[in-house]
Amino acid sequence: MEYKISTKLADMKPSAIREIFKSLTNPEIIAFAAGNPSEESFPADKLNLLSSEIFKSAPSTALQYGITEGYPPLRAQLEDRLEKKFGISKKDNTLIVVSGGQQGIELACKVLCDPQDAVICEDPSFIGALNAFRSNGAKPVGVPMEEDGMNIELLEKACRENPRAKLLYLIPTFHNPAGTTMSLEKRKKVYDIALKYGLVILEDNPYGELRFAGEDIPTIKSMDTENIVIYCGSFSKVLSAGMRVGFVSAPPAIVNKMVVAKQVEDVHTNQFFQMLCSDFIKKYDLDAHIQNIRAIYRRKCGIMLSALDRYMPKQVKYTRPNGGLFIWLTLPDNIDLSEFVAKALERKVAVVPGTAFTPDEHEVSHSFRITYATPTDVQLTEGVIILSEVASELINVAK
Amino acid sequence: MEYKISTKLADMKPSAIREIFKSLTNPEIIAFAAGNPSEESFPADKLNLLSSEIFKSAPSTALQYGITEGYPPLRAQLEDRLEKKFGISKKDNTLIVVSGGQQGIELACKVLCDPQDAVICEDPSFIGALNAFRSNGAKPVGVPMEEDGMNIELLEKACRENPRAKLLYLIPTFHNPAGTTMSLEKRKKVYDIALKYGLVILEDNPYGELRFAGEDIPTIKSMDTENIVIYCGSFSKVLSAGMRVGFVSAPPAIVNKMVVAKQVEDVHTNQFFQMLCSDFIKKYDLDAHIQNIRAIYRRKCGIMLSALDRYMPKQVKYTRPNGGLFIWLTLPDNIDLSEFVAKALERKVAVVPGTAFTPDEHEVSHSFRITYATPTDVQLTEGVIILSEVASELINVAK
Repeated sequence: MEYKISTKLADMKPSAIREIFKSLTNPEIIAFAAGNPSEESFPADKLNLLSSEIFKSAPSTALQYGITEGYPPLRAQLEDRLEKKFGISKKDNTLIVVSGGQQGIELACKVLCDPQDAVICEDPSFIGALNAFRSNGAKPVGVPMEEDGMNIELLEKACRENPRAKLLYLIPTFHNPAGTTMSLEKRKKVYDIALKYGLVILEDNPYGELRFAGEDIPTIKSMDTENIVIYCGSFSKVLSAGMRVGFVSAPPAIVNKMVVAKQVEDVHTNQFFQMLCSDFIKKYDLDAHIQNIRAIYRRKCGIMLSALDRYMPKQVKYTRPNGGLFIWLTLPDNIDLSEFVAKALERKVAVVPGTAFTPDEHEVSHSFRITYATPTDVQLTEGVIILSEVASELINVAK
Repeated sequence: MEYKISTKLADMKPSAIREIFKSLTNPEIIAFAAGNPSEESFPADKLNLLSSEIFKSAPSTALQYGITEGYPPLRAQLEDRLEKKFGISKKDNTLIVVSGGQQGIELACKVLCDPQDAVICEDPSFIGALNAFRSNGAKPVGVPMEEDGMNIELLEKACRENPRAKLLYLIPTFHNPAGTTMSLEKRKKVYDIALKYGLVILEDNPYGELRFAGEDIPTIKSMDTENIVIYCGSFSKVLSAGMRVGFVSAPPAIVNKMVVAKQVEDVHTNQFFQMLCSDFIKKYDLDAHIQNIRAIYRRKCGIMLSALDRYMPKQVKYTRPNGGLFIWLTLPDNIDLSEFVAKALERKVAVVPGTAFTPDEHEVSHSFRITYATPTDVQLTEGVIILSEVASELINVAK
């Protein structure tokens, strides 16, 4: 039988970088392409202790159906934490626990976008978000990035040219893949533009806790006097990525619809791990744990940047992140990105080509993303040396 | 700000029975309205032991991102089990682990249905499935049920009248809410009709393992010579509902699209609990565990049926299930269902009105659903006595 696939999914192909991600399980490959947090960041022993307590003291709550909005004690803890640390008003917002930040993004789009609507976003942007928009029939419209966030004039142009835009999707802090952080000034400008054009802002902040240098910048959500921001957070980079626990704080009218949409997707998020997150916050010092994670990434990022400074040809530009997991490199315009990526993979270093992150799938890119989060310290230097050699070689040929 | 909610979600209201479900947390209420499995069915001690082993031996696999298709050892175990116990060909199908059976249903609809398409289903049907269809913009079209499954003539009529029908959604075994099981003869006829009209069958089988009387009937999927059946199963009624682990076995072309759609919904299902399911199957006897669960429900269903036989007025009809969690009762036509439900709730017994399960939201119903799974043995009898008194009272008034 020939199956009639729905219009919105018929057009979606498995990502072109899927093959690269598959290669990550090959132990011979230096996996600079990964998006995974460091396994050192998972507090397995503490989770084991808490887990055992839950199985003994509350098995029937932990293993039974829960409510779609999330485990009530965890919701209350997160509301407190978001208010204290991120300036997000408990009074004006409702919190829903979701199955990873990814679900928060997808639900926001599902609730607000009809097919043929547009989502304005940074160019480059997070591939999981771009695909979530596409799977809901919405078209991602990219706005070029600068070192301090998206270009404001081009944002306004995109708003004017896309009257069917409903959402403005942003990763203001430690951007994936670009590694940059939006300045306070631009956050304010972006907020005003969203307000002017009637857009809801989707502020995605999975890396916000991972600052290892510089000063915190207020979230856009903390400036949300007009209730137009959906804030999306996650435990993936803090406690465990595999457990799939994230959260959304947004105006009640939006969260109420997200509850309806989530109910049909998975009823609720894994109840046991919601309790585990709640107990971790209650019984351990989450902030101290996060300080340890920051130290891991500070060290690993330092190793990778030192190697880049030492070996990478000057013609290749790269970001110097203050947090998060990624460095974004840009080759000279006359170098073919796909050739670079293929030659690097031949020499057993996997990177993600920038084309994976372009809102317009036909856009040309000369950039690529690498991570310092999961490779070993030795691999960090070795991999950068190989990438530098491949870049030098192609630059010499292109002369 | 007034938010522009997407067309498909703007029309979806929180379910009218939400208030009834909320009342279930009130310990004074006899919760016949619940859809939860018995907590006695969760093997908490064994899961605790396995859990501790996973945290010690494989924390970095268990807490890290996994692949969208699911934890490979669990997929292999489930493929074996489905082939051996349910006659589902490994060769012709691919298995994907999903975040509860609910996600399997939702993904099937998302992959195959465009807005304005129809899904033909039993009337009544599972509310979570009906809402999944609606949230994808597809219209559920109900076919009236008989004791041995849907009316075949009316199914064919629905197929003729709905050329945009893409899916035929069925719960052939221990139907929720109707409590009935489709005969082998009807399964064959339904399969032939689906083939004739080019429909994909979505066979939802969350209760299939819970038979406590009578003989197993082959799954529709086991007859699927033409590769038109998507089979959906779940661990919710067998190991834990709160962990959200289910599975789908379907032709590869369909599963490949489900992978794309699932990736944007939640990336993958909770990795730790996938490993827990896998280890449970490897180290314990899942079939022996299921025998224990069947014994629990055999006993509880027996208590409820005895009370119904003894106390319920003869004018009220009810099913005698051979498995699953539910009994479906039908009041005489001249009794107002909403009055009955309200009066029962006043007397602290919560039931689900049949209107919650009608594909057409404006349809009239005289039926309601009760469960024997979670109430205590004392409550089973007490609750039935109260429902019988309320029914008698209304029948006398209506005379």
